[in-house]
Amino acid sequence: MRDFLPAEKARRERVLSVIRQRYRAHGFDEIETPVMEEYSRLHAGIGGDNEKLAYNVLKRGLDADAIRAAADDPSGLADLGLRYDLTVPLARFYASHRAELPAVFRAIQVAPVWRAERPQKGRYRQFMQADIDIMGDASPRAEAELIVATLDAVDALGLEGATVRINDRRALDWMLDSFGFTSDERPGVLITIDKLDKIGPDGVIRELRERGATPAAVDEFYGFLHRPPLPEYDPYGERPIRSVLPDGAPDDVVADLVAIGDAVSAARSDDARIPLVFDPFLVRGMGYYTGTIFELAHPSVEYSLGGGGRYDGMIGRFLGQDVPAVGFSLGFERIVDLVTDSDRATERSIVLVHDRDVPLDELIALKASLTGGGARVRLEQRPKNLKALLERAASDGYMSFATVAPGAAVDALEFKPLA
Amino acid sequence: MRDFLPAEKARRERVLSVIRQRYRAHGFDEIETPVMEEYSRLHAGIGGDNEKLAYNVLKRGLDADAIRAAADDPSGLADLGLRYDLTVPLARFYASHRAELPAVFRAIQVAPVWRAERPQKGRYRQFMQADIDIMGDASPRAEAELIVATLDAVDALGLEGATVRINDRRALDWMLDSFGFTSDERPGVLITIDKLDKIGPDGVIRELRERGATPAAVDEFYGFLHRPPLPEYDPYGERPIRSVLPDGAPDDVVADLVAIGDAVSAARSDDARIPLVFDPFLVRGMGYYTGTIFELAHPSVEYSLGGGGRYDGMIGRFLGQDVPAVGFSLGFERIVDLVTDSDRATERSIVLVHDRDVPLDELIALKASLTGGGARVRLEQRPKNLKALLERAASDGYMSFATVAPGAAVDALEFKPLA
Repeated sequence: MRDFLPAEKARRERVLSVIRQRYRAHGFDEIETPVMEEYSRLHAGIGGDNEKLAYNVLKRGLDADAIRAAADDPSGLADLGLRYDLTVPLARFYASHRAELPAVFRAIQVAPVWRAERPQKGRYRQFMQADIDIMGDASPRAEAELIVATLDAVDALGLEGATVRINDRRALDWMLDSFGFTSDERPGVLITIDKLDKIGPDGVIRELRERGATPAAVDEFYGFLHRPPLPEYDPYGERPIRSVLPDGAPDDVVADLVAIGDAVSAARSDDARIPLVFDPFLVRGMGYYTGTIFELAHPSVEYSLGGGGRYDGMIGRFLGQDVPAVGFSLGFERIVDLVTDSDRATERSIVLVHDRDVPLDELIALKASLTGGGARVRLEQRPKNLKALLERAASDGYMSFATVAPGAAVDALEFKPLA
Repeated sequence: MRDFLPAEKARRERVLSVIRQRYRAHGFDEIETPVMEEYSRLHAGIGGDNEKLAYNVLKRGLDADAIRAAADDPSGLADLGLRYDLTVPLARFYASHRAELPAVFRAIQVAPVWRAERPQKGRYRQFMQADIDIMGDASPRAEAELIVATLDAVDALGLEGATVRINDRRALDWMLDSFGFTSDERPGVLITIDKLDKIGPDGVIRELRERGATPAAVDEFYGFLHRPPLPEYDPYGERPIRSVLPDGAPDDVVADLVAIGDAVSAARSDDARIPLVFDPFLVRGMGYYTGTIFELAHPSVEYSLGGGGRYDGMIGRFLGQDVPAVGFSLGFERIVDLVTDSDRATERSIVLVHDRDVPLDELIALKASLTGGGARVRLEQRPKNLKALLERAASDGYMSFATVAPGAAVDALEFKPLA
């Protein structure tokens, strides 16, 4: 967990403000939920491995007997926990407030989450997520809106050239069926396939054999991974999608992927390339995905900058009635590190250096006159080392300074530029 | 703890943005600290009664023996807790980062805090605070800057006419000494005096007698509370301040109060009245105050909208070296309820109503063309009840709508105003 000093905090707020502003333009509305959710909801099996990383909040008013009774089951000590993602709270929120929301509800959530990760570079225990989700739209219109909005936000941050890798859990499931894996094997096989980028095709086959997956299915998969090079097609569309899948891929799934691609291309007609790549081995870890899944890639980094997918079954767990839902989550912490901070303060920012003998009421009146005129003003009593003070102010983003003597009028101040 | 739906969330963000913008103009810089602090720091006696209301976070990796061992001391179960205010984290932050901060550091913190309050109207378990603090300035310049910035922020929210009630702990201490209370009695006597508004002078005297406070001192205090009516003076300044204190009030304390008043008046020369009131019985609950204390009042409500004071001793508890500090905390939740929400969305906001037969790529391209031009756009598939849909959109802040047919060009869309 980190403290943010002024320069870094200002940068983070600027990035958040751009993301919020672009998502709002695309018809999304921001909501907020409390940082704590009920323990039972956070540990209902929806959060996958993240559930184990939840910070749990001690029940209040526990007596010695209750504590002893909880010795073998620490869950008896906690009734609340800090959220580890924004998806579980959103599902709970939607189930609670559905009647007050539009039939198709487009949500923005820009908020911190907590995970008790082991300390390591680039992993934080408190970090921001910026999610958009669409509830109540089963059609690919939802995916198209999410992807276009996300690319627009990333562009607006100066990170042009991003690409969305896309796949569909239904295509994955069908592919594994077609190789001959049983549905019981599917979760384990997906976990292995998810490592393809890291361990390569041979590593995947080896791990599947070690897992004891159906040998004939592993052989089929081996043959598929080592098939002859594919012809060069258009970058995205029905032909390239079908070409990288085994023969006979389900028409409805392919049609949805094609429709999403056409829509995203149409929205980004200025883009020389199609910002979508079909990846038949993209898995995404969470168990709740039921349809499209996607990840945001950028040429400047190897890791993904965000991801999401369709999770049509989850709201039903809270509402007792399924609602189609699809979301895209930006990896805010990774993004904020990539954004170059070219836009320094645009307001007029001034340091007033005064001696001890300037009466306080004159000083405060001068400051008020300048702030009232739209400036940002910092007062500094003249120190021994004025140079160091002015350098400090310049590095804090101030643009000019003036020296204040007793009786000075605001119109008579002489402003000099800082560094 | 509350969920915030889109309209309320947007309102809160607008109010926060005004507060941040005005505080920035006055030379304050925003920082951020993690929501969790170490348990020992949250329970070091600085937080007063709030320490008891802290949410504590369960230690990770507790085994059955460790839990049993903690049966008689629940603090053994927690190593972290959620902050109950922004002052303890600020003192820790300043002690950690002092070398990276300007010598006089003006901090903004706009962030949630948590207290396990009993559920009651207007009390929340998660609520926002908006604090400004100045570290490293022992002079009344700091108080003047805090008060002027706070009144400016409140004005900018449309809550003109606010007043700051001010007192000084040194004046209170001197007054109690002069009546003859012992320094041991002082904390208890202050707790009783703090109830003056609620229980009146006779209630205060009765409670002091019940407490067993030095009888001669209580008699002196009784005489003071029932002294003849005071002459009418200027609203604020040396004469009125001295007139409401017992004779012989310390010159340095009175001089600071007068200097703050002169400075605030000078900054607010457009204000017909002086927005300060000296209140010799203002106490403020926290034990850490060492000098000026103040509360923000507004004619529209009886409760205070914020408060603060000088706490020169607190940083020393973390740093081992005293640093002067003074802060003003806005009661954000109370303020946001008072702000009338006149400013609806200023951007052009449009609903596009489309039939099922509009191809998705055309629809998404139309939307992209409008969002690219600066509009906020919501797509809606035509429902059976179009009227209800449009009313809903109007109440969500949308200004106009257009119907989209297949092949529609953006220039040919006909926009009609919404309700």
